[in-house]
Amino acid sequence: MNSGAKIWTAGLVIIGDEILSGRTHDKNIAQVATWLQVQGIRLAEVRVVPDVAERIVEAVNALREANDYLFTTGGIGPTHDDITVDAVAEALGVPVIIHPDARALLERYYADKGGLNEGRLRMARVPEGSDLIPNRMSGAPGIRRGNVILMAGVPHITAGMLDALTGELEGGAPLLSETIGCWVAESEIAHLLREVEAAHENCQIGSYPFFREGRVGANFVIRSTDTEDLASCVHTLCDGLATSGYDFTPGGI
Amino acid sequence: MNSGAKIWTAGLVIIGDEILSGRTHDKNIAQVATWLQVQGIRLAEVRVVPDVAERIVEAVNALREANDYLFTTGGIGPTHDDITVDAVAEALGVPVIIHPDARALLERYYADKGGLNEGRLRMARVPEGSDLIPNRMSGAPGIRRGNVILMAGVPHITAGMLDALTGELEGGAPLLSETIGCWVAESEIAHLLREVEAAHENCQIGSYPFFREGRVGANFVIRSTDTEDLASCVHTLCDGLATSGYDFTPGGI
Repeated sequence: MNSGAKIWTAGLVIIGDEILSGRTHDKNIAQVATWLQVQGIRLAEVRVVPDVAERIVEAVNALREANDYLFTTGGIGPTHDDITVDAVAEALGVPVIIHPDARALLERYYADKGGLNEGRLRMARVPEGSDLIPNRMSGAPGIRRGNVILMAGVPHITAGMLDALTGELEGGAPLLSETIGCWVAESEIAHLLREVEAAHENCQIGSYPFFREGRVGANFVIRSTDTEDLASCVHTLCDGLATSGYDFTPGGI
Repeated sequence: MNSGAKIWTAGLVIIGDEILSGRTHDKNIAQVATWLQVQGIRLAEVRVVPDVAERIVEAVNALREANDYLFTTGGIGPTHDDITVDAVAEALGVPVIIHPDARALLERYYADKGGLNEGRLRMARVPEGSDLIPNRMSGAPGIRRGNVILMAGVPHITAGMLDALTGELEGGAPLLSETIGCWVAESEIAHLLREVEAAHENCQIGSYPFFREGRVGANFVIRSTDTEDLASCVHTLCDGLATSGYDFTPGGI
């Protein structure tokens, strides 16, 4: 860790019985994580909770207190199981209001689709004091209230909202990484990884084993916020692998 | 909810910087969730935490206290970033020991691969009082201590461990589900979904919208532990869709 620089962190609460039932495979963890990296913000924890208000409130409060930002995905649609706005408003201690711009937006969007009804108007509800996040994909906007950001659960709509937020959030130095791939059982060189990491205090080394083409191998991911520290750690690791007689592949296998 | 029958629940802690960085796409939530359904156990919450001992301890303790079972995936390999066993032992308040059967197993596995070394021996370490879960895929076993179950993070190895656990855990009535697909914007029939769910207290209806072939549609998933309640709720929903003039597809679209 670079002790001098502030590390910006985010928590993510995924709201959805459909993920917990195994019916839907989550795609939002990876896309939110990847997007956050570019903003210089680290994803510190993810919680997947059911469509139950008190469970959402608990997760939202735990992760927003522990992090600079709190994101949610899911549960902001028009149906009875979409309770994210109410739960987050409860967590924040503010009432739910109809946002006039969201209402106007939905009126335009549904003008030639049968008009607004009770369900559709639900998507104009926000915790008081919120701004809207544009949604290029479908009618209902995302919601931002300070460091709390509510996004849709359908991955391509989530992606559009992340796009709209790009460059809008304060972050720190992005976490840099380099990957070294090697056809070696990670258990053969565990001591080397440990030693190299210990010698480079601003770097972390992750070891990700795989089994391909009938052979075992591993990718070693070196992470740091400092370019020079990162290069030095990579250099030491590659030296160590070469000295031990292993071929390695910069960029990973 | 069927108030008479006990609902068995599980929590899942996914340990891995590689998921939080976005580098690796999680596949374990869906496969653990699907497997649990068949065992009659509901996945109640998932937390993804980094390779940091105190964060693992906190998540493990929170979810094992709230649920009948606690599963972890990841962090039980041979390298310095594999700290799950130590963190879980700390959470359980027991020491880490070398399990003699695990050691024997690893000795056999590595006999023609260079033998045991310090890193490989790490994979024989377990919280005191644990049993082993067979691993058909690679050498290192999973670990079970009462209702706490530690599995590998690599999905096909996790799958093998789940296989070994099949039928070993006590569960309740499996949650049954039926899906009805409909080419309708869910916002058009939000009121119908709400009414039908309210009229069937042992059932939940989830609404999962999609956009395909240039048209919007949704799958409605009706869940219950009771066969008759489920059938009645499905019947009422289909009747309501037909009365409103919508075609629907049993089994989903």
